[in-house]
Amino acid sequence: MVGWGVMQRVYNFSAGPSMLPLAVLEKAGAEIKSAGGTGQSVMEMSHRAEEFIQIIEKTERLFRSLLAIPDNYAVLFLQGGAMLQFSMLPINLAGSEPGQPLKSATYVDTGVWAKKAADEAAKYVKIRIRASSQDKNYTYIPNPPPAAADDAYYHICLNNTIVGTAWSTIPATGEIPLVADASSCLLSGPLDVRQFGVIYAGAQKNLGPAGCTVVIIRKDLIGRAPSWTPVMLRYDIHEREKSLFNTPPCWSIYVMSLVLEWIIAQGGLEAMARLNREKAAVLYQCLEQSRLFRSPVEKRDRSLMNVPFVVNDNFAEKRTEIERRFLSEAATAGLVNLAGHRLVGGLRASIYNAMPLEGVAALTTFINQFEGSY
Amino acid sequence: MVGWGVMQRVYNFSAGPSMLPLAVLEKAGAEIKSAGGTGQSVMEMSHRAEEFIQIIEKTERLFRSLLAIPDNYAVLFLQGGAMLQFSMLPINLAGSEPGQPLKSATYVDTGVWAKKAADEAAKYVKIRIRASSQDKNYTYIPNPPPAAADDAYYHICLNNTIVGTAWSTIPATGEIPLVADASSCLLSGPLDVRQFGVIYAGAQKNLGPAGCTVVIIRKDLIGRAPSWTPVMLRYDIHEREKSLFNTPPCWSIYVMSLVLEWIIAQGGLEAMARLNREKAAVLYQCLEQSRLFRSPVEKRDRSLMNVPFVVNDNFAEKRTEIERRFLSEAATAGLVNLAGHRLVGGLRASIYNAMPLEGVAALTTFINQFEGSY
Repeated sequence: MVGWGVMQRVYNFSAGPSMLPLAVLEKAGAEIKSAGGTGQSVMEMSHRAEEFIQIIEKTERLFRSLLAIPDNYAVLFLQGGAMLQFSMLPINLAGSEPGQPLKSATYVDTGVWAKKAADEAAKYVKIRIRASSQDKNYTYIPNPPPAAADDAYYHICLNNTIVGTAWSTIPATGEIPLVADASSCLLSGPLDVRQFGVIYAGAQKNLGPAGCTVVIIRKDLIGRAPSWTPVMLRYDIHEREKSLFNTPPCWSIYVMSLVLEWIIAQGGLEAMARLNREKAAVLYQCLEQSRLFRSPVEKRDRSLMNVPFVVNDNFAEKRTEIERRFLSEAATAGLVNLAGHRLVGGLRASIYNAMPLEGVAALTTFINQFEGSY
Repeated sequence: MVGWGVMQRVYNFSAGPSMLPLAVLEKAGAEIKSAGGTGQSVMEMSHRAEEFIQIIEKTERLFRSLLAIPDNYAVLFLQGGAMLQFSMLPINLAGSEPGQPLKSATYVDTGVWAKKAADEAAKYVKIRIRASSQDKNYTYIPNPPPAAADDAYYHICLNNTIVGTAWSTIPATGEIPLVADASSCLLSGPLDVRQFGVIYAGAQKNLGPAGCTVVIIRKDLIGRAPSWTPVMLRYDIHEREKSLFNTPPCWSIYVMSLVLEWIIAQGGLEAMARLNREKAAVLYQCLEQSRLFRSPVEKRDRSLMNVPFVVNDNFAEKRTEIERRFLSEAATAGLVNLAGHRLVGGLRASIYNAMPLEGVAALTTFINQFEGSY
């Protein structure tokens, strides 16, 4: 635990929502009854009042500055999570009017979320899954197929939260807009936005609290939604209204602005990338040297954000007991949410931006001690 | 201002987001780094972890208890505001498969939001607007038409935030499910849920911070969504997954639970109704006696939540100057967000549950002083 006795804080390895920087929580707490001398909590501010307009505009400005987002991209703050983007994206980029033929799109299948995105899109678009790593339980990133000239877009999941893989090279898709679900890696390091037509991300990993979804979209891709699109699902409306078409998730946007300021204070995305590489190196090295555990993921495709690990085959008989004891004793030591995703089991440490190096060090120390008992 | 010098707090008359009880903000602030001894902020909790499951289950339990919601109704915590319900509702209750004939529904037109709901529903359903108060700028509630036997549902807006009217008698619609947008009045007093098929409300008036939408729906109305419905827009999925289909707006739900506990501590919905009637009586009486201002709304249909007022006709020449000076001097006195909605102009005081009687008294004192200068 961090500062046990004064303020009990745990190291939270959840895949999301997950840790926020302590400085962000302290600032949010200090302002909770009156933000910036306004006499109101941000939770109480009218979204049309100058006080909140300043917050949402600042948040967009910080995003643009951190990621060097060009002017021909819009930055939207929406609701519904990446899951709602699984529908909005195909409807807006490639949806058809009734009776019209379906357009097509390529999806690369790198895991549960990539597959869910494709399954949902299949309601609206002819889906082509032209590469998959399902044959080896998604433990690698497949070679990306070339873009098909008649595709409306080409969809990848940049970082696969459940299986712990990440694209290290962004596929070149030429004229076909590349779309990325970046929920679990956005702002973990620099990213060249110009390689993408659309980037979307739920906030609850690196960006802030759950309830807000960020969409970065090239403006020429906006305005293609068919007439039957629910109004809240139309990118053109949200762009025109600057994410204030209706009441936005004000508090989530505000806390996100504090997170963005914190990232800048740490040295920006280059500094984040350095820290994240260091944290991941420490953890993967510990697993390499472990008798008890191993990473199931191919080395070159390992995620810096989500690190699954499984009990080694020579301890297979005791796997259930080892996992249960590990989770229970880790929690007692203030290291929480280390279970793997319910669909795959095993163990997993998610180490987003806000997880300090000390948290990873505490985990590796714990792993070493734990395996001493076997 | 409240407690100026110690902690500057304003009386915020915004139509939403608006004031939260000070005790709620204090509790949320005290727990912001560690909620209930968990070592985590609620913003950091995994939505699948026991800590958060307890919070969302408690929130539902408090809702059910306060409103005496019967077991054959589901309580869902969704995203996207009432605006997303404008689409979800018709799609889920009356949406058609491609090529099938459209079903029909009755909408009563009592203002901008009721009209917007009907316009959006018209994408999916044959809309019948069979009563409207547009002829008198929506300053009254029209007599409700009888339900049509072939309607899929019958839609009203229970409290009209912009014009300040409210239904005092709930229309009897027999077998046809009555659907109510209750965004600006839910939990302001007792409501017999059994009169409705569906009640929906954005949180940011009486319930909590923006980012969560509550849907109370009779279970037999769930499960009718057509195959093309975006998965996040399907009531059946959200009911089956207990509002945890994907990451919910955890913080908004948590603060809502604190608001519900606060309402119970005040004496429940009967006590809220008494307080709201008293606050509204004080303000309407002040307007009755005012030389400068008047309520534009018919007496029997006046809202207890939103009180618009306009400059009297005999001061019409000075209207713009009076309104500008009023808003500016009120803000200086710590009474903020008193402008009418941008579509109708004038002035408006929204006095939701969390606005104390002292805030209304401060406003009437200010009105009396202000009109002394004319």
